Amino acid sequence: MVMQKYLDKAEALIEMLPYIQRLRKKMIVVKYGGSAMMDEELKKNIIKDVVLLKLVGVKLIIVHGGGKEISRWVHKVDMESQFINGLRVTDQDTIEVVEMVLNKINKELVTLVQSLGVKAVGISGKDGGLLQVGKKLSGGKDIGYVGEIRKVDPKILYNLLEKDFLPIVCPIGIDDAFCSYNINADDTASAIAKSVSAEQLVFVTDTKGVFYDKDDPSSIIPKLHIKEAASLIDNGNVNGGMIPKLQNCIDAINHGVSRVHILDGMIPHCLLLEIFMNKGIGTAILMDDEEKVYNGND
Amino acid sequence: MVMQKYLDKAEALIEMLPYIQRLRKKMIVVKYGGSAMMDEELKKNIIKDVVLLKLVGVKLIIVHGGGKEISRWVHKVDMESQFINGLRVTDQDTIEVVEMVLNKINKELVTLVQSLGVKAVGISGKDGGLLQVGKKLSGGKDIGYVGEIRKVDPKILYNLLEKDFLPIVCPIGIDDAFCSYNINADDTASAIAKSVSAEQLVFVTDTKGVFYDKDDPSSIIPKLHIKEAASLIDNGNVNGGMIPKLQNCIDAINHGVSRVHILDGMIPHCLLLEIFMNKGIGTAILMDDEEKVYNGND
Amino acid sequence: MVMQKYLDKAEALIEMLPYIQRLRKKMIVVKYGGSAMMDEELKKNIIKDVVLLKLVGVKLIIVHGGGKEISRWVHKVDMESQFINGLRVTDQDTIEVVEMVLNKINKELVTLVQSLGVKAVGISGKDGGLLQVGKKLSGGKDIGYVGEIRKVDPKILYNLLEKDFLPIVCPIGIDDAFCSYNINADDTASAIAKSVSAEQLVFVTDTKGVFYDKDDPSSIIPKLHIKEAASLIDNGNVNGGMIPKLQNCIDAINHGVSRVHILDGMIPHCLLLEIFMNKGIGTAILMDDEEKVYNGND
Amino acid sequence: MVMQKYLDKAEALIEMLPYIQRLRKKMIVVKYGGSAMMDEELKKNIIKDVVLLKLVGVKLIIVHGGGKEISRWVHKVDMESQFINGLRVTDQDTIEVVEMVLNKINKELVTLVQSLGVKAVGISGKDGGLLQVGKKLSGGKDIGYVGEIRKVDPKILYNLLEKDFLPIVCPIGIDDAFCSYNINADDTASAIAKSVSAEQLVFVTDTKGVFYDKDDPSSIIPKLHIKEAASLIDNGNVNGGMIPKLQNCIDAINHGVSRVHILDGMIPHCLLLEIFMNKGIGTAILMDDEEKVYNGND
Amino acid sequence: MVMQKYLDKAEALIEMLPYIQRLRKKMIVVKYGGSAMMDEELKKNIIKDVVLLKLVGVKLIIVHGGGKEISRWVHKVDMESQFINGLRVTDQDTIEVVEMVLNKINKELVTLVQSLGVKAVGISGKDGGLLQVGKKLSGGKDIGYVGEIRKVDPKILYNLLEKDFLPIVCPIGIDDAFCSYNINADDTASAIAKSVSAEQLVFVTDTKGVFYDKDDPSSIIPKLHIKEAASLIDNGNVNGGMIPKLQNCIDAINHGVSRVHILDGMIPHCLLLEIFMNKGIGTAILMDDEEKVYNGND
Amino acid sequence: MVMQKYLDKAEALIEMLPYIQRLRKKMIVVKYGGSAMMDEELKKNIIKDVVLLKLVGVKLIIVHGGGKEISRWVHKVDMESQFINGLRVTDQDTIEVVEMVLNKINKELVTLVQSLGVKAVGISGKDGGLLQVGKKLSGGKDIGYVGEIRKVDPKILYNLLEKDFLPIVCPIGIDDAFCSYNINADDTASAIAKSVSAEQLVFVTDTKGVFYDKDDPSSIIPKLHIKEAASLIDNGNVNGGMIPKLQNCIDAINHGVSRVHILDGMIPHCLLLEIFMNKGIGTAILMDDEEKVYNGND
Repeated sequence: MVMQKYLDKAEALIEMLPYIQRLRKKMIVVKYGGSAMMDEELKKNIIKDVVLLKLVGVKLIIVHGGGKEISRWVHKVDMESQFINGLRVTDQDTIEVVEMVLNKINKELVTLVQSLGVKAVGISGKDGGLLQVGKKLSGGKDIGYVGEIRKVDPKILYNLLEKDFLPIVCPIGIDDAFCSYNINADDTASAIAKSVSAEQLVFVTDTKGVFYDKDDPSSIIPKLHIKEAASLIDNGNVNGGMIPKLQNCIDAINHGVSRVHILDGMIPHCLLLEIFMNKGIGTAILMDDEEKVYNGND
Repeated sequence: MVMQKYLDKAEALIEMLPYIQRLRKKMIVVKYGGSAMMDEELKKNIIKDVVLLKLVGVKLIIVHGGGKEISRWVHKVDMESQFINGLRVTDQDTIEVVEMVLNKINKELVTLVQSLGVKAVGISGKDGGLLQVGKKLSGGKDIGYVGEIRKVDPKILYNLLEKDFLPIVCPIGIDDAFCSYNINADDTASAIAKSVSAEQLVFVTDTKGVFYDKDDPSSIIPKLHIKEAASLIDNGNVNGGMIPKLQNCIDAINHGVSRVHILDGMIPHCLLLEIFMNKGIGTAILMDDEEKVYNGND
Repeated sequence: MVMQKYLDKAEALIEMLPYIQRLRKKMIVVKYGGSAMMDEELKKNIIKDVVLLKLVGVKLIIVHGGGKEISRWVHKVDMESQFINGLRVTDQDTIEVVEMVLNKINKELVTLVQSLGVKAVGISGKDGGLLQVGKKLSGGKDIGYVGEIRKVDPKILYNLLEKDFLPIVCPIGIDDAFCSYNINADDTASAIAKSVSAEQLVFVTDTKGVFYDKDDPSSIIPKLHIKEAASLIDNGNVNGGMIPKLQNCIDAINHGVSRVHILDGMIPHCLLLEIFMNKGIGTAILMDDEEKVYNGND
Repeated sequence: MVMQKYLDKAEALIEMLPYIQRLRKKMIVVKYGGSAMMDEELKKNIIKDVVLLKLVGVKLIIVHGGGKEISRWVHKVDMESQFINGLRVTDQDTIEVVEMVLNKINKELVTLVQSLGVKAVGISGKDGGLLQVGKKLSGGKDIGYVGEIRKVDPKILYNLLEKDFLPIVCPIGIDDAFCSYNINADDTASAIAKSVSAEQLVFVTDTKGVFYDKDDPSSIIPKLHIKEAASLIDNGNVNGGMIPKLQNCIDAINHGVSRVHILDGMIPHCLLLEIFMNKGIGTAILMDDEEKVYNGND
Repeated sequence: MVMQKYLDKAEALIEMLPYIQRLRKKMIVVKYGGSAMMDEELKKNIIKDVVLLKLVGVKLIIVHGGGKEISRWVHKVDMESQFINGLRVTDQDTIEVVEMVLNKINKELVTLVQSLGVKAVGISGKDGGLLQVGKKLSGGKDIGYVGEIRKVDPKILYNLLEKDFLPIVCPIGIDDAFCSYNINADDTASAIAKSVSAEQLVFVTDTKGVFYDKDDPSSIIPKLHIKEAASLIDNGNVNGGMIPKLQNCIDAINHGVSRVHILDGMIPHCLLLEIFMNKGIGTAILMDDEEKVYNGND
Repeated sequence: MVMQKYLDKAEALIEMLPYIQRLRKKMIVVKYGGSAMMDEELKKNIIKDVVLLKLVGVKLIIVHGGGKEISRWVHKVDMESQFINGLRVTDQDTIEVVEMVLNKINKELVTLVQSLGVKAVGISGKDGGLLQVGKKLSGGKDIGYVGEIRKVDPKILYNLLEKDFLPIVCPIGIDDAFCSYNINADDTASAIAKSVSAEQLVFVTDTKGVFYDKDDPSSIIPKLHIKEAASLIDNGNVNGGMIPKLQNCIDAINHGVSRVHILDGMIPHCLLLEIFMNKGIGTAILMDDEEKVYNGND
């Protein structure tokens, strides 16, 4: 009978009660990037999760990257890409394109969120002086307009959240001379999470999570204390891209964020499954004294 | 695979997006009474629905009756029940017991709601001067301390809602001489809904809804304009108990309530299914110019 | 001449100026219980005092007991009362009756206050999660649903006071399993006074106050430092019922309440005379370093 | 026994309950002038009444005159007083002295009020642009810096009342050229009462009230409709000084003030007796459709 | 002597007093576009004027266009520009570039404002659902993603102004299907000015203003009633580009804007000179009943 | 060409940007006294500066003295002036005249400010209990009603500033017995500056500033650390009147005021030139660790 279908859905809703209670009015910063931004279907899934979290009362802030779209446009305008230590050398012309692409993505996300009935406001780190940066060096070499965050002024974020807007932030900052800089999106999310003392920081990535053995895909770690995370780095158990991500996690938790999640954006509804339903699909990084109690995959 | 189960639940949640958006920050008065109060399982179901609606941002007010519990206690203290035109004759001793039983039920509901993590406050119509009444006559006969509502002072309700408490109201009022009166719970819910210009008024009852032919259970009406409702009364198509209920519906809609639902409390999660998921399990009464569009049982 | 009568009254009012100034906007918790609840005339007197204090700007909270009315109803429903160490053994059936009677008294007080023109709201310790309790033992024996206060959440009290309602509290709490418990009304008043850092805590009782010699009625003590109060207990100079009362006083003052009064509810207008006009009709308990300056009976 | 005395006082207080309830949070403008300002004892009495009204929650505004003190100082600085139609010709030198004397009295009243524990702020019609005036002519003759009120900007009064200060106003205004003007204190009180839609306007004067027969002291009128007041003026039943006073009363009531009192400042506690205890010691002017119900001298 | 120079400047400041008083807390919408955006020196001048107006308390909203920068980028990415009736045909690829360029300019203006010490926030019409549009046709022909404003939701603007941010708006809107549209910047400024009932609307343009005779540069009109403006259009006295601009002016004034200015952005400090110092460097359009009093060039 | 004149003024305004930014929303207490109060032209200049600072957002509080006007009135009413150690012996009659004159000046300043379009409110230290004093002795001798400040209650100042009024304070206070006292205006300004933690305290005086060599007018000190100021006093390098002034400066800075200025009121626009344009026309006293960087006369 058709009614049973709806009853099942009602039951599914009711099961969410404890999760809604746990996260209402809490602040969560989501870094949204990687492949999950390329696939239209995955993108819609993520945004639906975001909107649902917003509607049940979570105070969300989205930080996004630009990913492959930047390379596409650099190519489109006939510029050459140069890399040092894997980081794009970002000269005056390049930062102009980078910023344009990031703002384009920013407004697309605003539109997507609003198409689901939630008012969003897209800002860059320039707006309201949100992100103040200094120049980053890489191995002592000047890689151009790539910035490190010196100071976050979260007033504009509080302002938008207070009025029930969803802030969507793109990682562009300005230095003391008011030049534009591209900033790593992970660093941006982490810095913002620290500045607002977020309850959770979530990285939607291209990896499954953190592994005990980086070469063994079955060794994924559902819960990880920051002490263990530091050991993994020290022991060389995590590879290149994960090292700065884990350092961001440790740093965030040491500055008042309660929990950081590393999720695979390719899993549909990864945000709901991990941060809302606590199903352990990725890796959660915790303070050392927090018990790894309410475990997922149960 | 176990993960599919969670994915299904996430999808169920996502389907709720438009319903959450439609009802967030709207005011809904629920009259909760009848058999649905006697069965512990049904009671928990209803309260879970209430809590979920509260948590996704609906501004709920619960009005409850006393039902068979009143008779049980009247008997327990060795008092006789006398009825005129089907209404209990309520003398000084009886109103004392009635009020005690209603307050008992009131605090039980408060406890039940709070056990699900939502703060509730149980009040009677005396508190903050919420319900001011006059004596009701029945066919010209004095039936004692049975009241008709003269005035609602909703200040205490706004106050509690503003601070995120869930108000639970029992239908006791006072007259100008500060005597206690029992009031019909349907009338109370309707009067409160009008006084706060509620979006919806919901009657959780012992009936399936309204029927085109009161003797044909298959003729239930999912959507009913108030003009049609008036016709049903005029044509004698509705029986005794339903007449005042329908009149309350018409009255509420004529005073600014957008929609009134009559639901069968025996259907699990009737609140979610009808007012949240719009599944047409009962009868919705509408303004004459509202299209009967988003139909249930689809 | 008749005018002189009014002039005298005007002068009486004017004499109140310093007392009004001293207590305006101060928080006072009044525990109202004992024989003063049984006599209609005395009850009205007390409530008039309460209303006057409210109207001149004192932020009052009333906590009441149930007294003999509980026994009357336990008897009425044909239940047996059993006592251990002078405490009523409170089984499931008994707590149900106790709670009903306390709520009945609660709403009667609400009505009485409102008949004098002040809006009151009656709540129990369940509402808004005000009183969270654990089970009390007596001499190691289980006496049933008699509770000890573990935590007070005063949000609902602040909320009601802020909107100019007078909160009237009955001493029923809930434990972690959401079971109801009867709590000693003195303990409740003291716990609430501590949780809101009340200026004063007042016990309206059946005793004249504290005596230097419990057998000498002329030895009543108008002002008592808490150190002296502790000595009286240690030296066996106070008898049974007064010991926990004095301990409550000492405890309240050690937790930020400035002054506690023990008054005889049989004296008309005892509240006005003692806390407002400072006439020393009972015993005031003070911090050790407070001078016993503005003495009564002057 | 000494206790009876206090009990009587407590009873006197309790009798005040309905009056406190009636006037709490209501706005009352008191014009204080005449002989009642000259006698130190009477002055203290009036101010005590003012302070009591303030403390029980009345929102009071005091407007005062200068009376004989002005003449004393004009004489003291060796200036001549000239009068046209009974109005002082107020040249540049005179207005300077008038303003100084009024401000002196103003600050004395502030001090007196504060000595009784209430914070007051003394302002003139210049402060915050409260009183904007035009030049008054008398029988077509220029009598100098004597002003008529053109506009009241009550923002500063609302501001002070909101923060619980008692505003005390002296009747000095400024014209478009920012020159100082003396204004009649009755006119000032009336204009302010109209601008804030005061509940009551009270004139503390040197007369007993209004008489049916101006030559028969026993014919004092306790309650007077404005239609009757207009008749008394038309029929010549009131003498000179009373005519503009009555016109002010009629005007105030026609602009939203509910009731105006004319009282004899020589009667101790005249404010309490008339506006608080409603003892009918002067004349109350009412709207035509208001019943002369709650009568004094009862 | 060097001090004289500073004295002169102090005097210049003092002369501004009446202008500051006139415009403080008033809302002014500035449409900034044309050649004044191409020249770095002129741009800085305009922005300095904007910042000064903001700092003395004017509530400013900036709307900007894209001008030649759009064409430059369309060319840069090897796209062809097609025009119908002088309007760019804006297909899917073109709107993407247009939006990127407008956002680029938007953030440059944010940076420029912030380099002068004022916090700005750059938004497009998508953010917070500010600008909702429908498709525009030109002579019945589809010119693609070029929009007409259907609705303005100014909540985000009020929100930013309230928190002392300067909102800078780029003219991109969305339709019901959440597609992006380019909107004429003049239309956008006018629609926003109407929606917030701005005191003034200012067009910074490439023209000197409005002329009595479009072929006689000496016939510039300093003040123009909307009736006269309508005549100029009807009589063919204004040429192509000015017609929609004047219609926007008339429309804005008919919807509550007090005054509209058309200024030549090539004149340094045109904003200060015209709207602040009232020096008549362009054309001010007024309501018909407003006197053309405080004239410039005096 | 006449336009150049306006352009120059626009440039002068633009130059003010950094100064407006530095002082907006900062609190500055100005002591206004001495000869600058006697000359009508200078008075207007000072008040214009005050009004401009207010309009660009500085939170100003003015404290004024009475100067020679007091002597003039003492003489006018035929009283003798007696001095001890240079301080006027102030008996009951004298304090009455002093207070009248100070209030007269106070209201004149209120009028002057309001004639320039800013709402001001004139208060004395009595109003709202602003200034509580004790009797001052001079060399052990009683000099009458001359007071020393014991306590400042700045509530009324915050209240007026919050509502955008400009408070103007005259230095009269009251003691515990509610007697009036004259207080030194410098002391009053300093005490108020400390109580509100003002950013700056400014003394408008009759001296050019502080000199390294009191006998060498060319040795004026533009910036002075408090340690140096203390040395100047210790070494006898400053003469009589300057000693208490410098002590006030040191005291204010030690209690949280950032900077104190001593200015010559005879220099037109001294307030603008020194505190706004930082042109070093007087002496600025700084904390020891503050660099004497942004120097004037540049």
